[in-house]
Amino acid sequence: MENFGYIVDTLFALFAMTLIIFMVPGFAMLEAGLVRTKNVTSVLTVNTMIYAVASVMFLLVGYQLAFGGWENSGMSIYAAFLFQMAFVGKTVNIMSGGVSERVRILPIALFTVLMGGFIYPLVVNVSWGADLLAGTVLDLTMYDLAGSTVIHSTGGWALLAAIMIMGPRKGRYKDGKIHVIPASNIPLVVLGALLLWIGWFGFNGGSVGSIASKENADTVALTIMNTNTAGLAGALIAGIFMYLRYRKFDITMILNGALGGLVAITAGPDLYDIHTPIIIGAVGGALVVIAVPLFDRLKLDDPVGALSVHLVNGIWGTLAVGIFAAEPEAGITLLGQLKGVAVVAVFVFTVSYAAIYIINRFLPFRAGDDEQVEGLDVTECGLEAYPEFKRAF
Amino acid sequence: MENFGYIVDTLFALFAMTLIIFMVPGFAMLEAGLVRTKNVTSVLTVNTMIYAVASVMFLLVGYQLAFGGWENSGMSIYAAFLFQMAFVGKTVNIMSGGVSERVRILPIALFTVLMGGFIYPLVVNVSWGADLLAGTVLDLTMYDLAGSTVIHSTGGWALLAAIMIMGPRKGRYKDGKIHVIPASNIPLVVLGALLLWIGWFGFNGGSVGSIASKENADTVALTIMNTNTAGLAGALIAGIFMYLRYRKFDITMILNGALGGLVAITAGPDLYDIHTPIIIGAVGGALVVIAVPLFDRLKLDDPVGALSVHLVNGIWGTLAVGIFAAEPEAGITLLGQLKGVAVVAVFVFTVSYAAIYIINRFLPFRAGDDEQVEGLDVTECGLEAYPEFKRAF
Amino acid sequence: MENFGYIVDTLFALFAMTLIIFMVPGFAMLEAGLVRTKNVTSVLTVNTMIYAVASVMFLLVGYQLAFGGWENSGMSIYAAFLFQMAFVGKTVNIMSGGVSERVRILPIALFTVLMGGFIYPLVVNVSWGADLLAGTVLDLTMYDLAGSTVIHSTGGWALLAAIMIMGPRKGRYKDGKIHVIPASNIPLVVLGALLLWIGWFGFNGGSVGSIASKENADTVALTIMNTNTAGLAGALIAGIFMYLRYRKFDITMILNGALGGLVAITAGPDLYDIHTPIIIGAVGGALVVIAVPLFDRLKLDDPVGALSVHLVNGIWGTLAVGIFAAEPEAGITLLGQLKGVAVVAVFVFTVSYAAIYIINRFLPFRAGDDEQVEGLDVTECGLEAYPEFKRAF
Repeated sequence: MENFGYIVDTLFALFAMTLIIFMVPGFAMLEAGLVRTKNVTSVLTVNTMIYAVASVMFLLVGYQLAFGGWENSGMSIYAAFLFQMAFVGKTVNIMSGGVSERVRILPIALFTVLMGGFIYPLVVNVSWGADLLAGTVLDLTMYDLAGSTVIHSTGGWALLAAIMIMGPRKGRYKDGKIHVIPASNIPLVVLGALLLWIGWFGFNGGSVGSIASKENADTVALTIMNTNTAGLAGALIAGIFMYLRYRKFDITMILNGALGGLVAITAGPDLYDIHTPIIIGAVGGALVVIAVPLFDRLKLDDPVGALSVHLVNGIWGTLAVGIFAAEPEAGITLLGQLKGVAVVAVFVFTVSYAAIYIINRFLPFRAGDDEQVEGLDVTECGLEAYPEFKRAF
Repeated sequence: MENFGYIVDTLFALFAMTLIIFMVPGFAMLEAGLVRTKNVTSVLTVNTMIYAVASVMFLLVGYQLAFGGWENSGMSIYAAFLFQMAFVGKTVNIMSGGVSERVRILPIALFTVLMGGFIYPLVVNVSWGADLLAGTVLDLTMYDLAGSTVIHSTGGWALLAAIMIMGPRKGRYKDGKIHVIPASNIPLVVLGALLLWIGWFGFNGGSVGSIASKENADTVALTIMNTNTAGLAGALIAGIFMYLRYRKFDITMILNGALGGLVAITAGPDLYDIHTPIIIGAVGGALVVIAVPLFDRLKLDDPVGALSVHLVNGIWGTLAVGIFAAEPEAGITLLGQLKGVAVVAVFVFTVSYAAIYIINRFLPFRAGDDEQVEGLDVTECGLEAYPEFKRAF
Repeated sequence: MENFGYIVDTLFALFAMTLIIFMVPGFAMLEAGLVRTKNVTSVLTVNTMIYAVASVMFLLVGYQLAFGGWENSGMSIYAAFLFQMAFVGKTVNIMSGGVSERVRILPIALFTVLMGGFIYPLVVNVSWGADLLAGTVLDLTMYDLAGSTVIHSTGGWALLAAIMIMGPRKGRYKDGKIHVIPASNIPLVVLGALLLWIGWFGFNGGSVGSIASKENADTVALTIMNTNTAGLAGALIAGIFMYLRYRKFDITMILNGALGGLVAITAGPDLYDIHTPIIIGAVGGALVVIAVPLFDRLKLDDPVGALSVHLVNGIWGTLAVGIFAAEPEAGITLLGQLKGVAVVAVFVFTVSYAAIYIINRFLPFRAGDDEQVEGLDVTECGLEAYPEFKRAF
């Protein structure tokens, strides 16, 4: 069978893509469970619109911008497109989660047009794609298999820009105190986080690009194994930390610890032996536990912990490749990793800040205080998430 | 490897089948979220029983009736069976959703015996299978890759018959007004719709029948890409429409728009270029937005919008093949498509109407008014969906 | 392609493994739906911690203990590991479900260390693995393709030991009466059970071990088909039974019937023709319906019916191979099956009882009566599952 590789890799990409699409309900359920009941429909609508807007923009503009054209590859070009398309909405999901309970839908949909069509595709271009920066002093040598920087930090920097412009939720920081707002539906949080976890198998495994040789089959399987291990370690360390500190197993922190570990491994799951991911994931989980209260002290209000999970661990994971898997002769160095982190940071933060700032002048991102009190479900969507359930407060 | 195709296509069919089975929780969650809390258990039970009854009937009778026997194909016959079996329950899911909040379980289980064992298999027989009508004037030339007509219209016509016989829910239309009954659990609606969306990749992609050549791999990937694009377009158009008209992003309509787009593309996702599905899906989404209030004006009470999503778009999608992908020399014409729509309509509507009418004489489909007031969870299932949660009304 | 088998089987194992991982949210949602709202977070946390602890222990110790080393197989060793790792948490999930609403998290996490690292790997060793008992009088000849005994009875025996040591929930049996405690969230129950069902395709199908020949492709597809059929039959028989007895379709019993059928088929889905699973699954469903009240009469308090589903049907399924598929010349006899059941029973029950007894001396498994009244979400996790929802009682 001369087309064996073409066929098997097409099937493999479709399998991986499908797993990634499970991250759409994954993010939606996670965020719907973490916010207050009065903002649940709004969060779900934002997640759905992001998938629709970002994917269509990637079809119309972004794919071409990232990869320089629709050319044939070692698999069906349609499968290659679908796999890449499955990534694009994630960067905005990361951002939208962190501005939940106060972001309005129309401006974030407009920002999604820019992110899905231009900003993210340009990041891909210089990292994985046609490479506009080749030959310049900014040429990136960063190794980032599945996007610790390209996806997670990108979403994280955009989020940081959005939080700085929009400010915190009404009532979150008052009289110098942090007002705790509990998650409204823990089963949805768990369901969402576990769907994300499963989606990560496709995300990272599929990023190997081919399963159609013995070596590649090993690399794909090792990648998925290491991805999972880092998630396990992140969950464990967060659980142990919460128990030692508070004698309570806080499941939202355990799951964010797992997600932190998963983000951290994403840059190089194919480069490590089977035990190193325990360290990388554990550090990732610990970083989440440490960073969440830190961002609160800085009054960067992030209801789902996205800065800690995606930005902090996106950076950590990219640097970890330089620490644990540096191969100077292959061009993988800590300095090169750092440079990648920095270039993407400057580019995404600047452009996102400018884009959000400009849109915000005409279409405010932030729902008014009255609207936040009423809840965005009614003001933005015209329907409540749980209309028949009596509220306890 | 002489058996390369056999092996890879068996694996591919098992993958596609699995995705379709995700539509079982997909339909269940979507419908459970759309109905009132007092009818949630009943809806979930109906969905579960349909899967069990329809699939067993298809195993015992239906597969043989549709395909004329258990013969070997280019893949394992067991995989071929599973893939086809995954479809059968969907036709009744479509129907049962539309008569939610008033349908009793035993009669619809009996109707499922007929649908899973006989009615749907006969539709398959003349469309995709052994073809009893071959050589007659009714011989169908309709192109319907994955069932815009064979699955979705079939379910839709059966639903129309059921609604006509059963009438609306108590209190839905009183004093000449339409009484709005809000969805009780929006996260479940979103989860269910997104699981259906993912299931569609298996539904349509798997219907290509083989991935084991370069051409087939391209066709499968194109099919899944176009399927997804139509869903995206349906969601977008519904979202834009709701915003322009009401300044609200109504997520239930956005998701029904997506599903409408997905139904519409199902007849010919393999025949279009990568941009045409934007048009087909957008029209599909628009049709849902237009049709939902229209059916209400006709007092055809359909709590989940199944007539708009599945019947209207099943027809539109089948005709769209004749409009955008007619190939007279290959026998694909608008007239041929129209004939297929009409023959299936007459057959399914007539037989379903007769079957429901007869069953209804002995076992009424419609729960009594008192039962509807109390809620079908208690009267049909003996247990409430959310017993510990205090109701707001 | 000389590595065709290696590549395709690696892909197949990764596909099967992914389906099994869907059982993590599957068990979590099922159990979260079956318990009272005040214990939901606790149940979800236990499920998450089990996945983390059991999998890491299997990576560090268990795999080696079960299979005697990390050697290359016909597929990538990493894929082989992932597939086996996906099983390990299930044995504890089965156990933890049955002691829900009273079990504390830290002691069950410690027991998971033992189960994931030692007890379960030893069962695997003598059944599927390196086989420490080879050549001894205890050498097992039991045929158990995917673990009716190895997984389900193992979990069930550990559960029985735990229930005997821990006793029932406070208030479950008082004044000689059984106090009914209704499930709090039926959509979660249905979602969880259906995710388990889908996961079973990977569990049993993947246990064939290879899809890379025509014969194996047939065996895999037959295995999945028969698995599904047994689930269908179990659901149907439970539904019919409940309707005949109570005129109500009790969805929790229907789903437990399905799960019972799935457990029962698991020992030999590859050995039967396509109709035998109807009998095996129907008996499985009937056994659940019969066993649930029986265990209650014995005051073995099991909130999710795990003893009936996993222990009773694990035994039934293993014996069913000896009844319906005995092949004395291949060493498959009813006596051999019975011996396997007995050896695993004695080993797992004894060791689990001892382990739980000893841990229990230092770290009580059972939450105090006051803690049970307040709810384990607050006492164990420090956060409620649904804080904004007003309770009806």
